[in-house]
Amino acid sequence: MADKGCLMVISAHAADFVWRAGGAIALYSGRGWKVRVLCLTFGERGESASLWKAGKSLDEIKRTRREEAERAAEILGAEIRFLDVGDYPIEVTPALRDTLVQEFRQHQPDILLTHTFLDPYNADHPRTAELVRETRILAQAHGYPSEDPPIGAPQLYSFEPHQPEQCQFRIDLLLDITPVFEQKRKAMECMQAQEHLWAYYTDVAKRRGVQAGRNSGQKIVYAEAYQRVFPSVGGAFV
Amino acid sequence: MADKGCLMVISAHAADFVWRAGGAIALYSGRGWKVRVLCLTFGERGESASLWKAGKSLDEIKRTRREEAERAAEILGAEIRFLDVGDYPIEVTPALRDTLVQEFRQHQPDILLTHTFLDPYNADHPRTAELVRETRILAQAHGYPSEDPPIGAPQLYSFEPHQPEQCQFRIDLLLDITPVFEQKRKAMECMQAQEHLWAYYTDVAKRRGVQAGRNSGQKIVYAEAYQRVFPSVGGAFV
Amino acid sequence: MADKGCLMVISAHAADFVWRAGGAIALYSGRGWKVRVLCLTFGERGESASLWKAGKSLDEIKRTRREEAERAAEILGAEIRFLDVGDYPIEVTPALRDTLVQEFRQHQPDILLTHTFLDPYNADHPRTAELVRETRILAQAHGYPSEDPPIGAPQLYSFEPHQPEQCQFRIDLLLDITPVFEQKRKAMECMQAQEHLWAYYTDVAKRRGVQAGRNSGQKIVYAEAYQRVFPSVGGAFV
Amino acid sequence: MADKGCLMVISAHAADFVWRAGGAIALYSGRGWKVRVLCLTFGERGESASLWKAGKSLDEIKRTRREEAERAAEILGAEIRFLDVGDYPIEVTPALRDTLVQEFRQHQPDILLTHTFLDPYNADHPRTAELVRETRILAQAHGYPSEDPPIGAPQLYSFEPHQPEQCQFRIDLLLDITPVFEQKRKAMECMQAQEHLWAYYTDVAKRRGVQAGRNSGQKIVYAEAYQRVFPSVGGAFV
Amino acid sequence: MADKGCLMVISAHAADFVWRAGGAIALYSGRGWKVRVLCLTFGERGESASLWKAGKSLDEIKRTRREEAERAAEILGAEIRFLDVGDYPIEVTPALRDTLVQEFRQHQPDILLTHTFLDPYNADHPRTAELVRETRILAQAHGYPSEDPPIGAPQLYSFEPHQPEQCQFRIDLLLDITPVFEQKRKAMECMQAQEHLWAYYTDVAKRRGVQAGRNSGQKIVYAEAYQRVFPSVGGAFV
Amino acid sequence: MADKGCLMVISAHAADFVWRAGGAIALYSGRGWKVRVLCLTFGERGESASLWKAGKSLDEIKRTRREEAERAAEILGAEIRFLDVGDYPIEVTPALRDTLVQEFRQHQPDILLTHTFLDPYNADHPRTAELVRETRILAQAHGYPSEDPPIGAPQLYSFEPHQPEQCQFRIDLLLDITPVFEQKRKAMECMQAQEHLWAYYTDVAKRRGVQAGRNSGQKIVYAEAYQRVFPSVGGAFV
Repeated sequence: MADKGCLMVISAHAADFVWRAGGAIALYSGRGWKVRVLCLTFGERGESASLWKAGKSLDEIKRTRREEAERAAEILGAEIRFLDVGDYPIEVTPALRDTLVQEFRQHQPDILLTHTFLDPYNADHPRTAELVRETRILAQAHGYPSEDPPIGAPQLYSFEPHQPEQCQFRIDLLLDITPVFEQKRKAMECMQAQEHLWAYYTDVAKRRGVQAGRNSGQKIVYAEAYQRVFPSVGGAFV
Repeated sequence: MADKGCLMVISAHAADFVWRAGGAIALYSGRGWKVRVLCLTFGERGESASLWKAGKSLDEIKRTRREEAERAAEILGAEIRFLDVGDYPIEVTPALRDTLVQEFRQHQPDILLTHTFLDPYNADHPRTAELVRETRILAQAHGYPSEDPPIGAPQLYSFEPHQPEQCQFRIDLLLDITPVFEQKRKAMECMQAQEHLWAYYTDVAKRRGVQAGRNSGQKIVYAEAYQRVFPSVGGAFV
Repeated sequence: MADKGCLMVISAHAADFVWRAGGAIALYSGRGWKVRVLCLTFGERGESASLWKAGKSLDEIKRTRREEAERAAEILGAEIRFLDVGDYPIEVTPALRDTLVQEFRQHQPDILLTHTFLDPYNADHPRTAELVRETRILAQAHGYPSEDPPIGAPQLYSFEPHQPEQCQFRIDLLLDITPVFEQKRKAMECMQAQEHLWAYYTDVAKRRGVQAGRNSGQKIVYAEAYQRVFPSVGGAFV
Repeated sequence: MADKGCLMVISAHAADFVWRAGGAIALYSGRGWKVRVLCLTFGERGESASLWKAGKSLDEIKRTRREEAERAAEILGAEIRFLDVGDYPIEVTPALRDTLVQEFRQHQPDILLTHTFLDPYNADHPRTAELVRETRILAQAHGYPSEDPPIGAPQLYSFEPHQPEQCQFRIDLLLDITPVFEQKRKAMECMQAQEHLWAYYTDVAKRRGVQAGRNSGQKIVYAEAYQRVFPSVGGAFV
Repeated sequence: MADKGCLMVISAHAADFVWRAGGAIALYSGRGWKVRVLCLTFGERGESASLWKAGKSLDEIKRTRREEAERAAEILGAEIRFLDVGDYPIEVTPALRDTLVQEFRQHQPDILLTHTFLDPYNADHPRTAELVRETRILAQAHGYPSEDPPIGAPQLYSFEPHQPEQCQFRIDLLLDITPVFEQKRKAMECMQAQEHLWAYYTDVAKRRGVQAGRNSGQKIVYAEAYQRVFPSVGGAFV
Repeated sequence: MADKGCLMVISAHAADFVWRAGGAIALYSGRGWKVRVLCLTFGERGESASLWKAGKSLDEIKRTRREEAERAAEILGAEIRFLDVGDYPIEVTPALRDTLVQEFRQHQPDILLTHTFLDPYNADHPRTAELVRETRILAQAHGYPSEDPPIGAPQLYSFEPHQPEQCQFRIDLLLDITPVFEQKRKAMECMQAQEHLWAYYTDVAKRRGVQAGRNSGQKIVYAEAYQRVFPSVGGAFV
């Protein structure tokens, strides 16, 4: 299957990949790509307010978030790995950097999806984005120590943050996720602790769908928005 | 042939389309697309210094520039139309706007290529870009009077200006023009009055080719750079 | 009533003020302010696609759009005036400029609401915004001929465009319109020709409401987003 | 008194809060708010040139700067705490982050004032700004360990840097400090080592006062300029 | 004298050149350069509020402003020409464009000074800046009809607007005007109708002087700030 | 010789100073300035792909890169020091910061050249730029411990990155390196492992030369592009 390509999604917290890139994941796994999600943390401190209010312990919360994310990944057709480095704040260490480099070396991704480089509402998100941008470069270097060969030049996209207008988020790509939206919806529903976001992100997908239609003249119901870090390269206007 | 699509290039002066989009034109005409170039002017006042220095009259210069541009278009496989509205400065009139709207209505372009929206070295270029952006919108409106039906939502790209760093030019797409570069070179050589630019734009194409290679991991020798005005829309990361 | 203040909304087309500022209008008219809407055009060519498709004539369309806008203004508690200068494109003439200056002189607005200064999907919108920014300045000048006295320094806000991320729209103010949302909804429903936008802008109001809550810790259901052109001035952090 | 609200000012060095936010502090303390100043350092290395030139020791300089800042805070009506983490450079450690989080948790600020996010003349300032932006988020998280409850969504403002045009400082708010300017002047005069700045920042306050008048039509003599990090939220245009 | 070079200042209104570039003018005229000021208007409507309040007629105001500007130019050592095209608003016509082109052709300036390209407080200023940027290009074109030869590539600078932070004014050059400040002060004092600005712009010059000192380590008392439109070119870092 | 001034170049990897600032170095050393190059690393991991492919060891690679850089520095007339802190990634430690501060204190540079603050293709480059910007400030502080006196306010420039359009590189200065280009070419040819860059950077120098000519009207063949961090200060428009 990996012949077809590999999509990697680097998610600061356990649920980010679902709200922000669930459609992309379902789309590519459905096409036979390997899709691999790296969760740096479970979002245990920063994005589990209702569990804390319900009196859960840190361990319970991590277990709950892990189980939810695993179910969501399964629905979307993705592998998932939890690095469990601790959130709020994520500390970027040499060990964490090396883990990402070795992941990229081993899985040779064609496409990388992660957070935006600015987010005044969340410091873990831009830190993750910078970490990915840097480790992608390290993984390209012949001199970086590894048992696996250097990677090529995988594309890197930022997925849509919660408040895009405050994050200098520029939409470069509206990805049509209409064929897989039901999968994304089911994956979102795994996130029991964040039920208020199910409808919210369904509305986001609809609005991006309307915009995708207006920007293409095609009939599109649901879409996800992405910002490119590097130029597209190819033989056609796309 | 138009079944395959229509690419329109709107060029402020007679030669702009060659230096900036000659590869794209050759590529698409070679694929059986209709490619249509609109030259708002011959560049008779602003971009024909050597002919003025040689003592030519305005009419001679316009004829010369027209002939060169026609030969270049022929080499590239494009139709060409000259609006002859006078350059340095181009005055945007209601009549000029309407001409563009009717062109878009009649030819139903899928892709539009034109100048950047900022250029401190040339006031005709950004004015043309704004004209295209606006007339594309007018051509979409059902209420705009025309014998032809409204257009859809053609993509709009800015091609690379002469001094990109001073024009806030962001490269969104590196278009691989390796297979057609010889055609572009021959088309450039039609511009007798601007021989100093042949080598210059060959170098630009090489440098963009190197960057295309670095950004994709592919082997690319020559490329052209483009900036997108609207988001891409589709079912894949491109 | 004018003692309490005057809010003026300058709308390029007949319906813009409803989708984009209907909540603000209802809020301020409900507080006893004079709210005055200037529609430069009926949106007859550019924003009445369904009426054109239904075979209506230009005059019928203008009449229909006028009636809808008048009903919407009435529901929102605003005066409305149509300048009927023709849309797609709006041509900015000295006469149009003077009309706006005299409006500002006569009504002495405290707050002005209009479009954004960039909108790649609509050329009438930024042109209207620039017109308002300039005529506000002219109306301040003692030497500008008028029977009415110069205005002070009314605040100027851009309301939210259809695709904010493509318009460099920065949210400076989230206006809580929860108490008047039903009025805005009823006003939107006057726009028979644009029924697809009722739900769309209800969703926008909800999403802005969620963001208003997150940015303030208050319970807010519906909000409208605005961008400031000039700094706030006052004796408190607001 | 805290019923009325709490304003916290986070100052990289001992004197920053006086030059940049002294008016705001006097204004709010005069209204019965609790105003609390956190000085990360005494500015002992980086902003005490005249004391070093006079041959003072590090300890003497720290004592002098502390005494000046304490007097200034007293004049302005503020509490003050010195974290003494060492300046030039300030090193951001987990312990420093936690200290700020616990401060926010304990004092539950309604408004936060700090430095800008860019300052090519001072690396401690943007580092402090990022520290405040991040710790404000951490303090909001239910899962962050603390004996005090999470904070809401306090507004965050950057005060004016020394060379605003080089710091991308955008003025969002001109705060009228006319009623308290004499207090600010007296507080500035506590800074014996920086006498050249007394007149300088009196001039800045006057210029901002003139601008406040021009932007509002009100009579304002002295003002301070602030940039907002998050949107305003409320029921009125402000 | 013209052997030494020619500095041209294009001023939207009669007094702009004094407040914003008076130091530069005195400096260069003192060095034997030809300095030529073009005032597009007298600022009769937009910048003569006190004369209007005093009941003067349009003709009286224009005469007064002309006399003041002539005296100021004389003090600064500059030629001055009034185009009297009418302010608030300045209308850019083909005739006005041609006048500027012929001025540039005839006087062959080495340096051009004018307004900024953004100013939300004054629409005449950015319009003048765009006019100068465009006519400079036209004057370079061999094909533009004129009895005088094309110009080279004179540098173009924006001088400091009244509220620089709102005009995206970036300071690229701090010009030391200490040796000529008294001349600038005397020239400012010619502007009887704007006495409130004498002290204001003396303060601006002092503040820029302080910044010039900080940015260079030199002893500078008064300076003017400028923004470059084109790159510097030369054999040294400057 | 140091009387004439001191130019310091801070290079993340061993070869950066050659491609990006070789002309400036040759120009200033030829004028009798002290030119001092600090290489933070040998570029051993990140910029020595061909040596890794040839099976060299880390130590061999470092030795090779050192020898090449030493030869290049000699050709250009510069001193060179290698800090050998390890590349890909460079870790910024307090010790590294102090080393730079002491270098600046000891050599009292008048001009500093380094990388850009953004580079999505290389994380070491912006980190080095931030390091230089900060340590320059530290070296200015009287309270920073050192045996050498504080520095003044040396200018700081970014040299041109490999893909300037992706790095927000704005050209503020085109430095004419025509008289020393042969030296730069020879220095480039010392970099045996990067032969593909010799022609590439010769082309860059030519293109910048063409632009330098267009922006000045002078005859310039080769140039290097630089972006300024602080305003120029002086008595002339430059």
